[in-house]
Parts: sequence; C-alpha cells; structure tokens
Amino acid sequence: MPELRKDPISGRWVIISIERGKRPSDFGMRISPKKGGFCAFCEGNERTTPPEILAFRQNKGAPDSPGWSLRVVPNKFPALHIEGKENRVGEGIFDKMNGVGAHEVIIENPDHNLTLSSLPIKSVEDTLWAFHQRMRDLKQDERFKYVLIFKNEGDEAGASLEHSHSQLIALPIIPHLVQEEIDQAKQYYGYKERCIFCDIIHQETSAHTRIISENDHFVTLSPFAPRSPFETMILPRNHESSFLLNTHFSQLAEMLQKTLKQIDKVLDMPPYNLMVHTSPFHDETNEYYHWHIELIPKLTKIAGFEWGSGFYINPTPPEEAAKFMRDAEI
Amino acid sequence: MPELRKDPISGRWVIISIERGKRPSDFGMRISPKKGGFCAFCEGNERTTPPEILAFRQNKGAPDSPGWSLRVVPNKFPALHIEGKENRVGEGIFDKMNGVGAHEVIIENPDHNLTLSSLPIKSVEDTLWAFHQRMRDLKQDERFKYVLIFKNEGDEAGASLEHSHSQLIALPIIPHLVQEEIDQAKQYYGYKERCIFCDIIHQETSAHTRIISENDHFVTLSPFAPRSPFETMILPRNHESSFLLNTHFSQLAEMLQKTLKQIDKVLDMPPYNLMVHTSPFHDETNEYYHWHIELIPKLTKIAGFEWGSGFYINPTPPEEAAKFMRDAEI
Repeated sequence: MPELRKDPISGRWVIISIERGKRPSDFGMRISPKKGGFCAFCEGNERTTPPEILAFRQNKGAPDSPGWSLRVVPNKFPALHIEGKENRVGEGIFDKMNGVGAHEVIIENPDHNLTLSSLPIKSVEDTLWAFHQRMRDLKQDERFKYVLIFKNEGDEAGASLEHSHSQLIALPIIPHLVQEEIDQAKQYYGYKERCIFCDIIHQETSAHTRIISENDHFVTLSPFAPRSPFETMILPRNHESSFLLNTHFSQLAEMLQKTLKQIDKVLDMPPYNLMVHTSPFHDETNEYYHWHIELIPKLTKIAGFEWGSGFYINPTPPEEAAKFMRDAEI
Repeated sequence: MPELRKDPISGRWVIISIERGKRPSDFGMRISPKKGGFCAFCEGNERTTPPEILAFRQNKGAPDSPGWSLRVVPNKFPALHIEGKENRVGEGIFDKMNGVGAHEVIIENPDHNLTLSSLPIKSVEDTLWAFHQRMRDLKQDERFKYVLIFKNEGDEAGASLEHSHSQLIALPIIPHLVQEEIDQAKQYYGYKERCIFCDIIHQETSAHTRIISENDHFVTLSPFAPRSPFETMILPRNHESSFLLNTHFSQLAEMLQKTLKQIDKVLDMPPYNLMVHTSPFHDETNEYYHWHIELIPKLTKIAGFEWGSGFYINPTPPEEAAKFMRDAEI
C-alpha cells in the first residue's frame, strides 16, 4: 500500500509509492561531462564578466584580475534589475511591481573541472562565507525582504554554465514557499511553543531511521515527506532562525561536502538543486523558524498531476534513501 | 525592466522578464515522433489492460473487446490503491495515512497516431464526457474528497505511453494547490462578494490583451501572471463552481481542441500538461470558486530558484503569448 505523508513544514502531502520502490540505479540521471571551451568564469577571463562585487584573494591583487580563489559577480542576464524603485501598482484587480532585485553569481573556485563535491574543503567554506557576506550586505538595501541562495548543478537541473557556481537573488517580497513554511512554523509554535524544526531534529535523531549524518553543529536527514527521491536537508542542530546567525562555517562546509559526496556516490553524480531557506530580513531572530539547506537531486519529472495538485509522487521512501546515503563509502 | 506580477488566484508571484522576451521558436521543445510497436491502449489489445471501468461503444459489444471509441481502465501501476481505509495516524509529530485513491486512464480514441489536438472532435467531446462521468461516479465513494484530471502529452511532460490518453486520480484529501486557490478565492469573495474568476473574465474580455478566444460559453486566456510561457486557461464564461455542473460539452470540446491546435501551431507541437481544477466534492456548488482547465506547455526548466522560492521566471509576457495564439492560422 502506498503511503500519504504530510510534510509538517510546508503542509504539503506526498505519495510515497513504496511498491514502485526505486533503487538508486533505476534513475539513470547523470550530469554530462564538462565540454570545456571558453569560459567566462575561468581565471584570466575576469574582464568578460560584469565587475566583481566580492572576491577572495591571497595576493591582494586588483579587482577583476587573476589570483582569486572565489569571485562574486552580477549575473550578466539578471532575472531582476538592481536599479529602480518597486513602484507597486494595480492593473484593475491585478497587482504588479517593478522587477527590482539583485541577481549575483558566486564562482566557487577558479578550476573549471571541479564541482562543489570535489572542491578543496577550503573553497566550500569560502563559498558559505561568500553567501553570508553577500546576504549581510544586501540586507542593508531596504528594498529587499529576502535573499534566496541556490545552486543548479548540471544542465538538467537548470545550470547554463558548467563551471561550478552558485547564485543568489535578492527579492522585494518574501517568496511563496518560504512564507508557507514560516506560516506553518508559526502555527506550530503558537500551539506548542516550540520550533517545529527543533522538534523534528529531536525526533529524528532519536529514531535514527532518516538520519544521514550528524556532527557537533549540524544534522543531515531525509525529510519524512520528501518531494522527490533522495531529497536531503541539512539543519543546524541547535535553534538558529537565520543563516546570518551561523558561525560554524567549517563544520557546515564539511557536512555539505560530505552529503554531496554521498549523493554523487549513491546516484552516480546526478544533476541537483541546492537551496538555502532562512528567515526574512525583517524577522532575523525568532523562535519558530530554523534555517536549513535543501538538496534535491533531479531524478523524476514534474508532470500534470504535480502541476495540478502540488502533490508529489515519490518512488523512494526516505528511510531507504537515508540508508543508502549512510552506507555510501565515500 | 522585468515585472513582478502576482497571480490573484494562487497568491504566487512570478517574474516576467520582458527583456529576455523569448519568441515561440526560441524554445525548441517538440514531442518525439511516435515509435509505434506494441501498445496496450490500441484496439485488439484490450485484454492487456486491467478490466475496463467505462467504455463508449456504438456496437454494444462486450467489455474489453474491440469496437470502442473510448475506454477508461485502472492504471496498471497506480500511484494510489483503490482498496482499504485511510487510517490516518501520527508518527510522533508527523502525519500519514494509507494511500487510498483511484488512478484511472482515459484512452481517448483507438487510433494510436492521433493526439488530442488531431482527434475527431467527437472524441474530444467523448473524453470530456468520460471525465464527467468518472468524476460523478467517484464522488459516491465517501473516502474521496477530490478528483484531479490531468493529461501529460509527450515524454518530456511525463507521458510514459505515446497513445493519447488522460488520467484521473481520486484523492482522500484536497490537493495543496487547489486548496490554496480556494482559500484565496474565498478571501476575495469575503471582501468583494464576487467570484474572483468572474472578475478576471470581466476585466480580461474588456481589455482583450490577454484573451485568446471566446465562444458563447467559454473564454480562453493567458493568465496575468503565468508560471511558464504560453500557460493558458479555459474558463466557463458564466459562474460555475464545479466541472460536475458543466453542460456545454460540445462547446468545450471545440474550445479545447482549438486551443491545442493553436499551441501546436505556435510552438510546433510542444510537450504539455493539462489539468482540470474544480471545487471539492463536499462543496460542489458555491459562489467563490470557478472551475477551469489549465494548459502548461513544457518549455522551461524548473531550477533551484523555482524549487526554493515557489517563484517562477517567465521569459514570455502573456500579452505576447496571447497575440501569437490569436494570430495562429489553424
């Protein structure tokens, strides 16, 4: 019998179709090998990107010159524009505003051939520092309510360039899915006076069936009601409402890279999406929301049922996914 | 400047990135040609599907024998099981239930090589009748709160068999996205004492910038804040809360096929998803919700930003999409 499970954070139900029980090798999605060729993100080509916003350099070299270990640049084809005012207006019953926002690219390392799972651990830590610094900086801009940090690995997951990079988009509104999580978390807090994420961590670390790994400061697990096979979540072990409050960068880098190596091992380098969910700027410190990283390997297709219902059909129970991940020899 | 637009029905914002302004030919997604080979949905192979639930036959032949013009059969690999009780239980803080539900396949026509856009109009009308009959029948089962009707056309849109078919899933809960629309529509009704869909139809048919076509009973339009390029909506012109209340089958068939022909013409036979949204069984007749058909050509990829935010970036403004559709010579 398949099982319907409710994700307590989003309120979304999923169908865990246990009988279809797909094993990791059944998916057969693998990122394409890198083709090489000219790359604007490679060292030496700094002038082909918009001027850098932030860079880590040991040699204290000039901006937009070689010698960096990480660069942050504006997206050349931004989804939103940095100049201008929101200008919220109606159009009859409809509502719209100018598409103001920041859209930046974090080039994680100069080496074209590495991925976030194979980068030196220092680069992973630098990447997390860059996320933090950019988020803190963009918070100063009063037009922005939220920064979404994300990464698309592999063409199938939406990456248009193969050189390993992450992105961030600063938004003048709180995204729908984040607001949904916040609303549910607030409702839970209103009833229980506890953070729902803290309760999940407590229950999961006791039961251990969906735990993938733990260190002093972070817990990695398969959520109870994942949207897709091998969806994975990394959370700070102790309550922390915003990524801006994080101080454990090396432990987080270690946990993130370990998890990505496990995903690569179990699923043979699948395309994936990574997202950071955090509290909105205006409510950075609170007792009900708990920042976290979501990882979604791109293994299944979104079809009419999912589009029409917001329901997901997941052929791999998270208990099995967690076991495969725990047992992966990396 | 890109534009942020709010979909008044779901509450979801989208980014219309006007400057990227993709033209229809920029997408280059086309359904694969049919390969043929053995097909369980073809005439003569009736015994290879589970026993039929409903069929239209001129010749009054026996069930599961040739001579039909449309068949409805249980899905051989159902996402949910028809037998059993819901059995809602907790698992600590989590909630789950048995995956009870119906999962049926509507084989729209015996001809393997046709699509919903090229079928004889009678088959399109029959398909809509079959949706209606199955929905009415499943309503009798008290375990079910909602039936989602959908269609995946093309492998890229999630179709696993090439013979033209639709599907339905009867669910013991109201799907998340439908509930979201209902909640928004109720809120609007609470404030305005009018149906939001009726108001949209009124505004759109006056402005005519996003209208694709109209007949006596139906209106087809590009929504103000579409999730993806060429997303299209067909609505009954006059208020009707449930598809179960529809009586204009031939007009709807005509409108649906015309719209699909326009999509095929403008986008060169793209893969697409079709979904019917209707009021839940327990609230069939109401003044705030308005049933409709959603069509989403599968042209763009869902990447980290969309997964993380519930925001969509749409490179084709709906005003342009509607114009392309209106101007299509079909």
